[in-house]
Amino acid sequence: MDPDFVASVLDQIDPHTTLFNVISKSGTTAEAMSNYLIARGIIESYGLDPKKHIIFTTDPKNGILRKIAQEEGIETLEIPPEVGGRFSVLTPVGLLSALAGGIDIIDLLNGAKAMFEKVSNKNIYENPAALNALLHFLYYKKGYNISVMMPYSNKLLLLADWYRQLWAESLGKKYNINGEVVNVGQTPVKALGATDQHSQVQLYNEGPDDKIITFIKLEKFERDIKIPKIHEEYSALSYLGGKTLSELLNTELFGTEYALTEHGKPNMKVIFPEINAFNVGQFFFVYEFQTAIMGKLLEINAYDQPGVELGKKVTYALMGREGYEEFSKEVKEKVEKKEKFIL
Amino acid sequence: MDPDFVASVLDQIDPHTTLFNVISKSGTTAEAMSNYLIARGIIESYGLDPKKHIIFTTDPKNGILRKIAQEEGIETLEIPPEVGGRFSVLTPVGLLSALAGGIDIIDLLNGAKAMFEKVSNKNIYENPAALNALLHFLYYKKGYNISVMMPYSNKLLLLADWYRQLWAESLGKKYNINGEVVNVGQTPVKALGATDQHSQVQLYNEGPDDKIITFIKLEKFERDIKIPKIHEEYSALSYLGGKTLSELLNTELFGTEYALTEHGKPNMKVIFPEINAFNVGQFFFVYEFQTAIMGKLLEINAYDQPGVELGKKVTYALMGREGYEEFSKEVKEKVEKKEKFIL
Repeated sequence: MDPDFVASVLDQIDPHTTLFNVISKSGTTAEAMSNYLIARGIIESYGLDPKKHIIFTTDPKNGILRKIAQEEGIETLEIPPEVGGRFSVLTPVGLLSALAGGIDIIDLLNGAKAMFEKVSNKNIYENPAALNALLHFLYYKKGYNISVMMPYSNKLLLLADWYRQLWAESLGKKYNINGEVVNVGQTPVKALGATDQHSQVQLYNEGPDDKIITFIKLEKFERDIKIPKIHEEYSALSYLGGKTLSELLNTELFGTEYALTEHGKPNMKVIFPEINAFNVGQFFFVYEFQTAIMGKLLEINAYDQPGVELGKKVTYALMGREGYEEFSKEVKEKVEKKEKFIL
Repeated sequence: MDPDFVASVLDQIDPHTTLFNVISKSGTTAEAMSNYLIARGIIESYGLDPKKHIIFTTDPKNGILRKIAQEEGIETLEIPPEVGGRFSVLTPVGLLSALAGGIDIIDLLNGAKAMFEKVSNKNIYENPAALNALLHFLYYKKGYNISVMMPYSNKLLLLADWYRQLWAESLGKKYNINGEVVNVGQTPVKALGATDQHSQVQLYNEGPDDKIITFIKLEKFERDIKIPKIHEEYSALSYLGGKTLSELLNTELFGTEYALTEHGKPNMKVIFPEINAFNVGQFFFVYEFQTAIMGKLLEINAYDQPGVELGKKVTYALMGREGYEEFSKEVKEKVEKKEKFIL
């Protein structure tokens, strides 16, 4: 919602050839809705037909977007009501963008389906979701409150951002299923190999025993580059000549794994033979399932997010939304009473 | 060093009009050196003069790049020998790229200088670096092993990446200055407002008392967008009409701060009145100084990184660098003995 960012995106598009996909189950999320209003304002200012330039991805029955769609005849995709936002990547929420980006969504879903078979295995040693959830749970119980995901591939880096939301919002909970205050949750952290070897790995190797690390290795990159044989008179450079970048990158990954293990730091690795829709589908599904199991182990509800309500309410109140007048006063009074400390 | 990424960068450039700036103090870092060899290979394959298309930013006296520069007459910039990589942003390491990117580097340095005055103040309440280091130290001692930096501005997001390296690599240490094993370090985490309100804030509000959160607020964005008044019949949308995106974004920041405070989670805020070189210079300097103070409080050496040596050695060994033959055998034997667990 950063205005500098939104403005720069709008600079790049031609409204005549743009379709805006507005994604919100309830149609009340302030960020999605304000950008919807801005997009619609542009469409209308060009004299274009909103029905031809906007679609809604929303609840099949409820919410404001559904209502507007019915009134105006705007096309829609449905978000299954029982699937929460952070678990929705394999629903129309993620699939339309994937399709538009040239991804084979049938392969994506087939990957998820294949993984469903694997994670249904009752032998935990052959069930990656159950085993990984259990390992994370046992370490969490021992004080490992951080879970790092570190892909050694720029193209796979955003998978770690997806994981961040899934793991944090599903498992970070004040109450357990019995209503007792537990304040649990393991903090997911994203890192990038090899870049973060020069940023985070010093801490991972020598710092506290508080993190469990998952590497993501890509075996076959789409492109590769051979390092030329130049400066062969210097032994500190000559060993690089003739090797490929992918060989060097994956050797660095191995070196990092080896060092962590020698330092006694728990680490594991997810291997992508190559990047394709099937493999990414498997990845999504195994982590969604693992998160569900981790929720069971922690005895919390992995599917709600009550902790974000207060912040939203304050935003509504201060932005002047109808019905929040009293709460707005309360917030302002509370803030005035607080001492401020400004340097 | 990701080959898909490097290849896509090389696709974009015209070697005839490109100057490659090779940055490495020792000239042995595998990533920088392999990309140097690749760049040089391209320059040479086009029949161009390396002296006109390559410069080195390196140690004034030592290292392989200095030697090559002297032999071949390649132009250089100097990295002050006493300044480590993660503290080098305000040296030629950062300044040439900044200048090339159109940033006023005199203003940048003036900002740092102005902050130097502030952080030299012996009254801790008027010294942001000392106060912030102390707060982080006291919380760290109470078990807050995570430090989140969350800018509410896409343009300021990379400051959090810079902070990640500074905080992690400086403070993540196995030994204290007396040689005792301490395994200290607070894990820095990057988040983006408002996006991560829908990803991380549930965990921040309801999860364990293990993180101290720093918001970065931008008061004046370069551009802004007014939300048009559409769908005024819906009260869940009408309050947005007529407001600006920056107003909404900063109200959301306030809502998040308010909720965290109500949940008893420690948080603070760095305010940028606007983005300019002077303010960014201040930011760099205050955090570098704060890191130095935190190192003193933790009684560790904030300027070395011994924990990355083993990983580098393993990489050299497996890539066949001269002098690592014995170590290579040792690594391979050790790995073969280990049981593997593959799903």
